Amino acid sequence: MNEGVKLAEPEIDFQEYLTEKRQVIDDEIDRLLPSVSEHPRELHEAIRYSALARAQRVRPILALTAYEALGGTDLDAALPPMCALELLHTYSLIHDDLPCMDNDDLRRGLPTVHKKFNEGIAVLAGDALHDLAFQWTARSGKIELVHELAVATGSLGMIGGQVADMEAEGRAVTADEIEFIHTRKTAALIRCSLRFGGILAGAKDQCMESLTVYGAKLGLAFQIVDDILDIEGDQDKLGKEVGSDEKNCKATYPAAVGLDESHRIAGVLIDEAIAALEGCSFPTRRLTEMARYISQRES
Amino acid sequence: MNEGVKLAEPEIDFQEYLTEKRQVIDDEIDRLLPSVSEHPRELHEAIRYSALARAQRVRPILALTAYEALGGTDLDAALPPMCALELLHTYSLIHDDLPCMDNDDLRRGLPTVHKKFNEGIAVLAGDALHDLAFQWTARSGKIELVHELAVATGSLGMIGGQVADMEAEGRAVTADEIEFIHTRKTAALIRCSLRFGGILAGAKDQCMESLTVYGAKLGLAFQIVDDILDIEGDQDKLGKEVGSDEKNCKATYPAAVGLDESHRIAGVLIDEAIAALEGCSFPTRRLTEMARYISQRES
Repeated sequence: MNEGVKLAEPEIDFQEYLTEKRQVIDDEIDRLLPSVSEHPRELHEAIRYSALARAQRVRPILALTAYEALGGTDLDAALPPMCALELLHTYSLIHDDLPCMDNDDLRRGLPTVHKKFNEGIAVLAGDALHDLAFQWTARSGKIELVHELAVATGSLGMIGGQVADMEAEGRAVTADEIEFIHTRKTAALIRCSLRFGGILAGAKDQCMESLTVYGAKLGLAFQIVDDILDIEGDQDKLGKEVGSDEKNCKATYPAAVGLDESHRIAGVLIDEAIAALEGCSFPTRRLTEMARYISQRES
Repeated sequence: MNEGVKLAEPEIDFQEYLTEKRQVIDDEIDRLLPSVSEHPRELHEAIRYSALARAQRVRPILALTAYEALGGTDLDAALPPMCALELLHTYSLIHDDLPCMDNDDLRRGLPTVHKKFNEGIAVLAGDALHDLAFQWTARSGKIELVHELAVATGSLGMIGGQVADMEAEGRAVTADEIEFIHTRKTAALIRCSLRFGGILAGAKDQCMESLTVYGAKLGLAFQIVDDILDIEGDQDKLGKEVGSDEKNCKATYPAAVGLDESHRIAGVLIDEAIAALEGCSFPTRRLTEMARYISQRES
């Protein structure tokens, strides 16, 4: 064999790629979470129950995909903060499902935490996951990531979006209002995930800018698709009740602009996300595939 | 006037000291919090309502006292993470007061957040304060502080203590169990506050160890005094209902070992906290006064 000449490994297809990365994230979350033998046992059971339920792991996979595209290879250092993104998302779902908010019974194919345990445990397990997310982010040694995460998920980001969402329930809302809500409630953390990947890989300003625009557009599209799936989706595939937005008189894109227009807007945003990567100096194939996947997903 | 000779400023008495420091903390929290003009308005109102209510500011004052004793002078850098300790405490009170937990109507002399606003806002304002605490901690640039805070307040710290507290309601508990609960529920964050002061001032190992022991003992004593005040205290001075522990069948020192023994244990802990400072190379007068104040406080 001719040394010095190395054949490129054949690249695996996107579904395999996704399955492989999801497994990497699942294993790392399992490894990092405190054991159920820690006291108080019920709290640690609730933490593991929610964080290890079958989930898509979209946020850490986006971070990992950006990181690897930029040439990052130190997974020991990069995975804990990436998994923190998933914990942050998980805590927000637990609180969102509470009776005083969306009052949902089913999440990721399982009873919600307040149904399986009780409301007090649900509030506190969410709080503990919120803390763990910052612990895992701090492991990176990068204070910039802590600041990014806290801003993206705070009162001017995710939580602000959730409150605006709650306030909009039961009344007619404009497309601008919905965009305000979705940009904060969902897109802020997805945008942050892409920035995590970039910062961890030491990306330069121009790459960071491309990833940020890609993340913001993709994040908004993600929530619009979510709204659409709540009408057109299959409950078994989704692992949560469909029709809950309508039941709760939620502000959604379909409610504000209709189903067809929602499909169209999601498509435009996906195209814009992909276009934001044009001219990047790093390989963008997987990020492009992720964007297509998010627009076509069934769960 | 003889230049080069400077008379030492007469030190102010402890009550003045406390009032002065409280004002510094109050002003800084007010300055750092987002304005109510930020959208969503109700969320930012709830954040400011809870974080700016008249409060003792024990945790940031302890951090500041340790910091200044160690010679720290850069308040611009030190105050944001110190105020983060107060936000963290405030968020935990909001969640603790919820109907699914202690179901309290009064806090710091005002209706609790879920009474003044609603339960959804209370959960989310707590979550937003939790995020803000990490934002303010990150401003220090010290990743070590982020890690300290997230560990002290997570499932093996404050939240673990709150869950154990909830689980112990309505049954007889041993003194060991109460110590487990109080060490986590209250002492972990107070211990962390002293460590914040030390880390921010660049304290050496031996000083850090003294501050840590002082903080742990003081924190436990603080909660025992709290338990005692819930029986012997004055509702107007406390700004919250008295007798709520007994009403909720809470695990407390007085319930486990009696009122006299609780007074005795608190006294021993305060003495041990003060003794931990012996041999320190920095001035310990204010920390000693803080310990005496905490054991004799009426609110």
